[in-house]
Amino acid sequence: MASIFTKIINREIPGHIVAEDENYIAFLDIQPLVRGHVLVVPKQEVDYIFDLEDDMLAGLNLFAKKVAKAIDKSIRCTRVGVAVIGLEVPHVHIHLVPLRTMDDINFTRPKLKLEQEELAEIAERIKGAV
Amino acid sequence: MASIFTKIINREIPGHIVAEDENYIAFLDIQPLVRGHVLVVPKQEVDYIFDLEDDMLAGLNLFAKKVAKAIDKSIRCTRVGVAVIGLEVPHVHIHLVPLRTMDDINFTRPKLKLEQEELAEIAERIKGAV
Repeated sequence: MASIFTKIINREIPGHIVAEDENYIAFLDIQPLVRGHVLVVPKQEVDYIFDLEDDMLAGLNLFAKKVAKAIDKSIRCTRVGVAVIGLEVPHVHIHLVPLRTMDDINFTRPKLKLEQEELAEIAERIKGAV
Repeated sequence: MASIFTKIINREIPGHIVAEDENYIAFLDIQPLVRGHVLVVPKQEVDYIFDLEDDMLAGLNLFAKKVAKAIDKSIRCTRVGVAVIGLEVPHVHIHLVPLRTMDDINFTRPKLKLEQEELAEIAERIKGAV
């Protein structure tokens, strides 16, 4: 069965997409830790990041760098943190999280609930900076 | 002033090194979240991961993949999680954290205090699997 991320890639379900190329896509996490929390995903549906072929893994990280630079420009933060956990959705995703404190990247704390309008506005801001 | 990681690279202070090549090094975090928590570091002293040149960033992640595969083989875990936070030591470091639950990669919780003997034993186990 296609993962929820593949459904976003295929436009079967909506996503707040901020960047996309042939192999990778980036969109907002809809249960963000902080405003501007983005997921970077390879279009290839692989479960575990360290099972990606070397060229796909390198490309994913260079794509994430581009998106992180855009977050740095458009979202108020000290820097962009990175996390890959992968205990939930079985499709590789790098979390890019605009950080001000260590607790901003603590996945055990409650997620923000943002309105669609605010998510759309944040996505536009990041997209404009990519 | 040289970062604490540069001092480990230069053997000015001891580290439990598990892998090393010309450009990168991996050693145990001495304040680990869980047993087998490793830091992967470029020898070039750059503060922010997204300021690394593309080839160094790609190479760092491929080096991390090799180390993560060794952790998978030698430490009991579901998979290896990844985090880059960088609010403390101003020298890029990827945390590789053997995960069983989400809380295993929560940096706000207290760190383990392990004896040097146990750290050395863990390092040998990972090193043997690289």
